[in-house]
Amino acid sequence: MKNPNPILFTDVILEDNFWSERLKRNREKTLTANYNYLKKQGRIDAWTWDKGEPKKPHIFWDSDVAKWIEAVSYCLANESNRSLEKKVDYIVDLMANAQLDDGYLNSYFINVEPSRRWSNLRQEHELYCAGHLIEAAVAYFQATGKDKFLNIMCKYADHIDKAFGLKNNQKKGYPGHQELELALVKLYKVTKEQKYLKLSKYFLMQRGQKPKYFILEQKQFEKKYPNKQYIPPTLLSETYNQSHEPVVDQKEVVGHAVRACYMYSGMADVAKETKDKPIEKACKHLWRNVTEKRMYVTGGIGPTHQNEGFTFDYDLPNETAYAETCASIALAQWAHRMFHLDPDSKYINVLERAIYNGILSGVNLEGDKFFYSNRLSVLPDEIETNAHGHDIDRQPWFECACCPTNIVRFLPSIPGYIYSKSNKDVWIHLYIQSTVNLELNNSPIKLSQKTLQPWDGKCKISIKNVQKKSFTLYLRQPYWSKGLVVKQSKKMIQTTAQKGYVKIFVSAEVRTTIDIDLGMNINLVSSHPKVRQNNGKLAVQRGPIIYCMEETDNGKHLNNISLNGKVLKTFPAKMKSYKYISIRGKAQIKSFNNWNNKLYTSNAINKMERKNIKMIPYFLWANRKVGEMNVWFNAI
Amino acid sequence: MKNPNPILFTDVILEDNFWSERLKRNREKTLTANYNYLKKQGRIDAWTWDKGEPKKPHIFWDSDVAKWIEAVSYCLANESNRSLEKKVDYIVDLMANAQLDDGYLNSYFINVEPSRRWSNLRQEHELYCAGHLIEAAVAYFQATGKDKFLNIMCKYADHIDKAFGLKNNQKKGYPGHQELELALVKLYKVTKEQKYLKLSKYFLMQRGQKPKYFILEQKQFEKKYPNKQYIPPTLLSETYNQSHEPVVDQKEVVGHAVRACYMYSGMADVAKETKDKPIEKACKHLWRNVTEKRMYVTGGIGPTHQNEGFTFDYDLPNETAYAETCASIALAQWAHRMFHLDPDSKYINVLERAIYNGILSGVNLEGDKFFYSNRLSVLPDEIETNAHGHDIDRQPWFECACCPTNIVRFLPSIPGYIYSKSNKDVWIHLYIQSTVNLELNNSPIKLSQKTLQPWDGKCKISIKNVQKKSFTLYLRQPYWSKGLVVKQSKKMIQTTAQKGYVKIFVSAEVRTTIDIDLGMNINLVSSHPKVRQNNGKLAVQRGPIIYCMEETDNGKHLNNISLNGKVLKTFPAKMKSYKYISIRGKAQIKSFNNWNNKLYTSNAINKMERKNIKMIPYFLWANRKVGEMNVWFNAI
Repeated sequence: MKNPNPILFTDVILEDNFWSERLKRNREKTLTANYNYLKKQGRIDAWTWDKGEPKKPHIFWDSDVAKWIEAVSYCLANESNRSLEKKVDYIVDLMANAQLDDGYLNSYFINVEPSRRWSNLRQEHELYCAGHLIEAAVAYFQATGKDKFLNIMCKYADHIDKAFGLKNNQKKGYPGHQELELALVKLYKVTKEQKYLKLSKYFLMQRGQKPKYFILEQKQFEKKYPNKQYIPPTLLSETYNQSHEPVVDQKEVVGHAVRACYMYSGMADVAKETKDKPIEKACKHLWRNVTEKRMYVTGGIGPTHQNEGFTFDYDLPNETAYAETCASIALAQWAHRMFHLDPDSKYINVLERAIYNGILSGVNLEGDKFFYSNRLSVLPDEIETNAHGHDIDRQPWFECACCPTNIVRFLPSIPGYIYSKSNKDVWIHLYIQSTVNLELNNSPIKLSQKTLQPWDGKCKISIKNVQKKSFTLYLRQPYWSKGLVVKQSKKMIQTTAQKGYVKIFVSAEVRTTIDIDLGMNINLVSSHPKVRQNNGKLAVQRGPIIYCMEETDNGKHLNNISLNGKVLKTFPAKMKSYKYISIRGKAQIKSFNNWNNKLYTSNAINKMERKNIKMIPYFLWANRKVGEMNVWFNAI
Repeated sequence: MKNPNPILFTDVILEDNFWSERLKRNREKTLTANYNYLKKQGRIDAWTWDKGEPKKPHIFWDSDVAKWIEAVSYCLANESNRSLEKKVDYIVDLMANAQLDDGYLNSYFINVEPSRRWSNLRQEHELYCAGHLIEAAVAYFQATGKDKFLNIMCKYADHIDKAFGLKNNQKKGYPGHQELELALVKLYKVTKEQKYLKLSKYFLMQRGQKPKYFILEQKQFEKKYPNKQYIPPTLLSETYNQSHEPVVDQKEVVGHAVRACYMYSGMADVAKETKDKPIEKACKHLWRNVTEKRMYVTGGIGPTHQNEGFTFDYDLPNETAYAETCASIALAQWAHRMFHLDPDSKYINVLERAIYNGILSGVNLEGDKFFYSNRLSVLPDEIETNAHGHDIDRQPWFECACCPTNIVRFLPSIPGYIYSKSNKDVWIHLYIQSTVNLELNNSPIKLSQKTLQPWDGKCKISIKNVQKKSFTLYLRQPYWSKGLVVKQSKKMIQTTAQKGYVKIFVSAEVRTTIDIDLGMNINLVSSHPKVRQNNGKLAVQRGPIIYCMEETDNGKHLNNISLNGKVLKTFPAKMKSYKYISIRGKAQIKSFNNWNNKLYTSNAINKMERKNIKMIPYFLWANRKVGEMNVWFNAI
């Protein structure tokens, strides 16, 4: 099992209901809704803003527009859309006109504070915006073949390459919000220009080196701009942006979760492309720390709003969970890269956990409202009286619009996560009805999945292999599976998973059919006893999907419900017109009788009452009436 | 059971070990430590501060100095101390010199911003400081008979009486931080001047009336002082200072807990003195709300740091508990007043709960370090990574020094909470070894308690009744008691408690002895099931004392310990030289074996291991090595 590579999103055709429906909504509604906010607020036209005009650009607006363009690109790969393409081309023209002769390109620092270019890398998002613009340019090129935007970004990247580095006339800095690192690897892959890979590696390796760049930068900044704030004092910790030590020495995930996982993604990319063992080793340490000690069962990461990030091992509060949508997206992107660095299903297990739960919960069914933070337990009163995170209900937009624009670009990128390939082998990571056209050994292969995943455990794989060359197919055995049952051309075959994949030899037939039963169950999940917030509690999972209860189905006081895992059953259900599988069963709820007005007593008679309960997928919560929601329940 | 009145602290002599030891430490160490900070930081000499000098006064410094004087006064009542008295007289002289001709007296607004007098009642603590100064003046007069300070404060109160009210030339305002209301009733009681009682009632009744004073004030302020902040936006809610509606309509405790309970104390006072039924009714509503739905088992109140106050019913997070020391003191003071308005032991039960737990935890054994917030569960990692409250360890001082100075004045006031009397009856509220000299029916009575409470349940009451007039003695049956066993002159007598008091007829003998067994147990306390944070958990209480476990006795992972209440036993123990009763027993702790590196699993084998545990009184925690602490435990 060697050298798998990702398959470009353009080579995969989604044919399922679950994701296709979401991507259609994303394409038809979310893209437009996002665009309208970007346009209305002046983010699109920030490139031509002039002093005195309203809608003054903000330091991170370019990144929002960039993510929107990246989203359009993924959509265009599947379905042409002249109107969207025209909008992108309009923005590209604005950027071409705005770009300075030396290649510099940032709407805020060109139009608002031209003298302050590169003066505050720590907090002012210049290199972060550059990264998102590069990602957008690469995606737009891949989707449309148009290279104008790509050339603009190469020119900007060349400028950055000259400005930053270890030479005497260069700034020895690195991004205060990582993102550019992974973007430069994408740029390298599409242009084959080694300098972009080297620049990415420079940014990673320079981070955390002494003397610390940000300390020198702060001194200069405060001297030069005594009336400006360099950074809010609450964000002053070096761990906040992971510059506390060299990246190869980092073993614990710390600080702002999105910054962290964008950086870890860049590290995984660079480790793979440059075969750098110390970086690879750091990636694996960090991966173990986050997935074994600091990740919600939904794939959410970063439990606290204080730093929008990590706290300490096994600290996973449910009510006050920050678990930013963007952080789960970043985790999924990192997971995908880790697999290609170290082929093992444990990475894809986390990717799957995030996309079906903590990421998908970030957007409503209609595709026009978004969660910034994704709590695992919600009490309306709690949210009203505490300012721990965001709202009880999804919102159409945020001033800091990272989450809506991240969702809108991530969903249409999902086809790119289903398969990988090497010269001789194919990997199926996600069971999603789709078709992929590949070349293996210079021979074309067409592989299709037919499945009702995530609702049903059956999957039929059809392979069309016209030139009849044999190859190896790796089927992921999901962590939630009780074991794959595989029939090849209707004959049962013995399977054992290695590193989480079942290896199938596909012989030289024109057509091969493989039937899989993924072994879906209702699973009762416990968390490590050190997760004090889930002490004695269970979560309910079926296939990749974590379930929850909502007040609208189960009444108030969800915290007082105790589950009996043995009597849970699945039922087909509908929310508005959306079909899904619900879980129903008999549970118990604490009785408040006998308590009267007592708050404390040493003569407690804790009676339980029977209760029928209904659970829905976590990603579906907050699509109806606002109310309580809960994921973890006491067990009977 | 009618018309009980408090007994002045000067009439009670403490003779126990438990409190006497604390009061001695408070007198010998805390008073001096507080004074040194006050002096060093310029708070004592703020009255003579001049422009350009260092140590510029702050808007609430007068209140800190006032509470220190009040503390000195209570101490002087028991034991003369020339040095302390001289210090107070020095400050009184400073104030006399600082006081303006019109009576106005505030070190900040006289010396720093004289033009801004009464311009920001909402946030600038002018009337709050006046209240504390009045309390101090009354106490100093009661303790020493000296009236200079009292006269200064009468002059200031007269000034305030002219400045505020409903007449045309008066400001229709009221304190942004309540305190003056209760202080004016004290001033009324000592001077018999009705105007002070009326002014107190005006401040209460005007609060929350439309048009809202603070809204008008904000407009004027922002017009007049465009460069100054009227109030931090996070504190802008009207519930924060309980001005959201008229006080007689208030049924829920809201906002800043100290502001709230100082106001409720003033309301109880005014209701009693003016026989105002609507205010009394509001007091009872508010009392029920806080004690039946919003109070920690320690008597802590105000669960969140966000507003230093109340959130919603049954919301009592343990780890992030704010439960400010000052708020528990304010609750105890209010409880005492409620009893005298509505004689019922339920008020004294709360007073007792607070003083033995949530208040006493505010200071260390040495008397030189203080908690601002009193959490019920502490994980060092949690405190390090979150800014929910204050430190893991007590601190010698705070910039906002309300808690140290409140502790230092509250402890020596405790003798005043032990007894009450009417013309014919005596009430024993707290079982504390002490002697009180009373007049009943114009006849002197000397009543002494001999008891080792709170460690032991026996109490012997000796009454010397020289003129042999019979009277009624009311003995409180504590909420934690399994029933009082009472012997009068060695004969068992049948008792039934009414409104929580056992009524004893004391016949006309010169000497009467009453032996009581208070019925102490190790009680296992449950909280109402709606307190989601204590779901399925138990707290351990013995007598009035709540117990906890500390890491230094029990190792880490206290959250994973499950208590078996049946095998808990008491043991005499020592911490440094401090003698107390510990509780030991056999418990279980979750095993981490079988978990390896898994964070989640659907095949959990939750093994338990046996563990011997040791519990200490909650008020004793954080007197040794810093570490985990926990009050609520899972039950086996």
